[in-house]
Amino acid sequence: MDENLPAKPGQRLQRGVSRMLASLGHAPLSEFVPSGGLRIDVISVSPKGEIWVVECKSCRADFIGDRKWQGYLEFGDRFFWAVDCDFPTNLLPEGSGLIRADSWGAEIERMAPESRLAAARRSRILRDIARVSTGRLLALTDPMGISASVS
Amino acid sequence: MDENLPAKPGQRLQRGVSRMLASLGHAPLSEFVPSGGLRIDVISVSPKGEIWVVECKSCRADFIGDRKWQGYLEFGDRFFWAVDCDFPTNLLPEGSGLIRADSWGAEIERMAPESRLAAARRSRILRDIARVSTGRLLALTDPMGISASVS
Repeated sequence: MDENLPAKPGQRLQRGVSRMLASLGHAPLSEFVPSGGLRIDVISVSPKGEIWVVECKSCRADFIGDRKWQGYLEFGDRFFWAVDCDFPTNLLPEGSGLIRADSWGAEIERMAPESRLAAARRSRILRDIARVSTGRLLALTDPMGISASVS
Repeated sequence: MDENLPAKPGQRLQRGVSRMLASLGHAPLSEFVPSGGLRIDVISVSPKGEIWVVECKSCRADFIGDRKWQGYLEFGDRFFWAVDCDFPTNLLPEGSGLIRADSWGAEIERMAPESRLAAARRSRILRDIARVSTGRLLALTDPMGISASVS
């Protein structure tokens, strides 16, 4: 039915989450590494520039093994967990948003509280998102452009 | 030799310019339409978040016919013209940068003076670049994600 289904469970949730965010007018970017580290499963920019961070957890072990999630909070105005329908949501810390997702879509079950970024920090994160997504786009549309930058 | 050469002369210059900018560590985006209009041939974000605007002119007529170029100045910290080696550069207004480009690369012949963006405006432009490039990336990597956002 869907030949391009991503291989890993976490990536399937990312795809569903990204589709849902796009349907809300957001611009979602997967596997975003801001300058200075960490890897954010999905980061998303609303039309007005609000930044959402979504951490996808495919199973209990995936969540238990993650000791760095609090580090993601400082990258967005709102933080969400995205899990599939079987995930035991009582494990998740309170005070964050909750998204139910599968490979094809998602819905927001609980809106995340707002923790508004400072203006200068928002600008830096937008800069990093712009640079990462533009770099990936160039790699897809003109691979020679990227090899030139590496040399 | 190069099967993917862009069809239009202006797009060929854009490709060469983008490769050169990538080699400088910039993240270039072609044919960027910021919210509120105009179409910028190449907009580019440096590692520190400086924004460059490049207007590509393939011939004299292309330049003479452009009555809106001054509108581009407010979108970047520096503004450049990019032209091929045959272009009569005495036509170009002073006080802007000059890039010589072809389909494969480019070089900066004259650095553009800096006209530094206000912080809030920079943040809005970075937001728009992030949203446009992330949207294009999603269209390429998961076309269904975009059709969902249209419906």
